[in-house]
Amino acid sequence: MNLENGMKLDRITTKLEQLSETELDHAEKFLDALFTKEEKPFNHYLGKFLEINQEADLFTMKLGKQTENTYGVAQGGAVFSLADIAIGFYLIKQLPEEINVFTLELKMNFIKAGTGAYLRAVPSILHLGNTTSVTECEIFNDKEELVAKAFGTFYLKRPTI
Amino acid sequence: MNLENGMKLDRITTKLEQLSETELDHAEKFLDALFTKEEKPFNHYLGKFLEINQEADLFTMKLGKQTENTYGVAQGGAVFSLADIAIGFYLIKQLPEEINVFTLELKMNFIKAGTGAYLRAVPSILHLGNTTSVTECEIFNDKEELVAKAFGTFYLKRPTI
Amino acid sequence: MNLENGMKLDRITTKLEQLSETELDHAEKFLDALFTKEEKPFNHYLGKFLEINQEADLFTMKLGKQTENTYGVAQGGAVFSLADIAIGFYLIKQLPEEINVFTLELKMNFIKAGTGAYLRAVPSILHLGNTTSVTECEIFNDKEELVAKAFGTFYLKRPTI
Amino acid sequence: MNLENGMKLDRITTKLEQLSETELDHAEKFLDALFTKEEKPFNHYLGKFLEINQEADLFTMKLGKQTENTYGVAQGGAVFSLADIAIGFYLIKQLPEEINVFTLELKMNFIKAGTGAYLRAVPSILHLGNTTSVTECEIFNDKEELVAKAFGTFYLKRPTI
Repeated sequence: MNLENGMKLDRITTKLEQLSETELDHAEKFLDALFTKEEKPFNHYLGKFLEINQEADLFTMKLGKQTENTYGVAQGGAVFSLADIAIGFYLIKQLPEEINVFTLELKMNFIKAGTGAYLRAVPSILHLGNTTSVTECEIFNDKEELVAKAFGTFYLKRPTI
Repeated sequence: MNLENGMKLDRITTKLEQLSETELDHAEKFLDALFTKEEKPFNHYLGKFLEINQEADLFTMKLGKQTENTYGVAQGGAVFSLADIAIGFYLIKQLPEEINVFTLELKMNFIKAGTGAYLRAVPSILHLGNTTSVTECEIFNDKEELVAKAFGTFYLKRPTI
Repeated sequence: MNLENGMKLDRITTKLEQLSETELDHAEKFLDALFTKEEKPFNHYLGKFLEINQEADLFTMKLGKQTENTYGVAQGGAVFSLADIAIGFYLIKQLPEEINVFTLELKMNFIKAGTGAYLRAVPSILHLGNTTSVTECEIFNDKEELVAKAFGTFYLKRPTI
Repeated sequence: MNLENGMKLDRITTKLEQLSETELDHAEKFLDALFTKEEKPFNHYLGKFLEINQEADLFTMKLGKQTENTYGVAQGGAVFSLADIAIGFYLIKQLPEEINVFTLELKMNFIKAGTGAYLRAVPSILHLGNTTSVTECEIFNDKEELVAKAFGTFYLKRPTI
């Protein structure tokens, strides 16, 4: 470890010393999630922070402090992020590698408060066109109850020659 | 600092030592955001991680590693979270304290890639009923360009006597 | 036939005499649809004009001059009306008679131009709550291709005692 | 009038004679709306049946038997059609003549029952891109109260050379 990193580390440690025991637990949990060495289909921090994982065509998001809203249930934005990421990576897998995928519009209906150990996303494609895809994504809790459903359009950006 | 906290801190420090210089920078940034002592209208970690702040009726979200998707622009889920949080807290301010606010359905159209220093949310209320509110929220970048717009329904949960 | 009706009839006949042969064909078709003696689950003119019919849980809408837009394919508003009516009456059949059903919000994605002999609506219920229901409705053409899909929330109005 | 038209006219008249006085009133009203000689920006029958008219950038739809649902207020599909037609023709006016406009997705939130003499649509454009436009449309009643709002994406089809 070089000197600069050592100084950064000292500064961070000093900050961590100010945290309460609960906050320290949260800090460790968040750092573990963010700097996981696990292979992910995506490499962005928001997906890691939300502990979104993919196995085959299913995506799960662990529920915990990172997904909780003011009322202690899964934040709408967290559930939406799960659907958005699940659809996006599901699309990417069906398409040639050079195509990038962007959300054009996505609507989510929230049916049940997101509670339990995790949420599971089941994306599907209603229409795969040349430049857009119409998709939907069901979100279930760990009791297989429907918690939310997303429905929307993605843009398929092909490389310009 | 008690013994248990000291051990936790050691364990976290050991993990931080494994990080690259860039990762260490990110770790510090995220910890600063998550454990800020700043007063927020909301106390959930997702809002803090996304660096969402409120001033009067305007909400801003800083753009950075925490909001970036695979293509280096603001993640759809991050932009949606900004709108969802902005509308929710805007509603809460208009309503008696005992009323809780839940997102029933929210649709977002993404118009422009979210880039620049921050995004700014301007929520508004189209209809405030007894049990639901129809709302919308415009999202601008730091050049005042419209980046996205959300439109949806919130449930106003009154206390049952 | 009383005198007043006779005079009305004369006035209408005089107007019909001004129509071209094609218009006269359309007029006859529309009058047949609007004043059909067929039993319908609904008794409103818009559904009749659009030639929407129900058999068991399936709703069909004949395609023709009455549904055509400027480009000669099914008008978005006609396809949306089919979904809205199909979901509404599908809900009414599941619920006690005294409950009225109103559309709170409905989104439709148009996937394929509506052409062929008819469109067929397949409504389903994602969630049936006490005061709202989250629903969806797929629209197929006569080749069983998905033409559009609707997704939205209905209000279940119970009688106030 | 040629013989064939004369026979058609006789057949229609015979059918009209079967109608009740109220039905005859409706028949006359619908025929007047459908075969109006008035100049319209659109020439499709659904718009005429719904008595949708344009003046400058504002579109109105008369309320009456043609727009009523089972509960005697404006049918969701009628209100949606007004928004869809208003946005479509508003877009067409901003664009070169050779561009055709198709609805890709449109969501409507229904805020208030559509009653009174007419509804008025105020379309606006949030984003006008090369191939798509993001738009919205407010629907007011004759007391200037917001009755519904639509929000969605239109496809701008340019001629292929």
